[in-house]
Amino acid sequence: MKSLILVAHGSRRTVSNIEIIQIATQLKPQVADTYQHTGHAFLELAQPSIPDAIEQAIKAGANEVTILPYFLSAGRHVSEDVPALVKQKQQQHPAVEFKLAPYLGGAGGIIDLLAAISKKI
Amino acid sequence: MKSLILVAHGSRRTVSNIEIIQIATQLKPQVADTYQHTGHAFLELAQPSIPDAIEQAIKAGANEVTILPYFLSAGRHVSEDVPALVKQKQQQHPAVEFKLAPYLGGAGGIIDLLAAISKKI
Repeated sequence: MKSLILVAHGSRRTVSNIEIIQIATQLKPQVADTYQHTGHAFLELAQPSIPDAIEQAIKAGANEVTILPYFLSAGRHVSEDVPALVKQKQQQHPAVEFKLAPYLGGAGGIIDLLAAISKKI
Repeated sequence: MKSLILVAHGSRRTVSNIEIIQIATQLKPQVADTYQHTGHAFLELAQPSIPDAIEQAIKAGANEVTILPYFLSAGRHVSEDVPALVKQKQQQHPAVEFKLAPYLGGAGGIIDLLAAISKKI
């Protein structure tokens, strides 16, 4: 079973964290043909943590876990912190396949989306 | 003449600010049919500032300036700081039409983009 976990930074503002949950919820049906399980996680300041969300996915039966970083720039969080947490879980669960998707800002398509937004104004 | 200004938070990390410049540069040809002038600006920690970029657009001949916030969540920056700066400039330049695009994270299309990224993994 494949699991997709949307990972965001996490905020002190509850409303920002709720936005992430809403995005993960809206994403779920759109990826259901590929990912039978989806979740969300926060790097800091909010729950569930990335390790907790991964554990939850594995408990739900996932043997492949894809982490999708909801970040705009390739800072330390994207380049070091998130991969380190994923690597730890990989070592704890060698039978599970872990995949790290490109972060949102670095993925192809962001330019098209910005162009579409700016043309609708 | 219409101008589009991509507005990001700004970072202490030069490489993150360069990412914004690259995105604005890639966006330029994709919106050229609508916006004859494009620019980028940072809310803090980097230059040009939002007021400076707006002034630059107006000097270049813009009579309509659209601000496109490159932010993922509707925090204080998106809901208060950016609109306040735009309002100030609107008061200084009543003949110029200012438009504020929805922030990236709140714009329709982000779910589609996330779904597309996660299916490519």
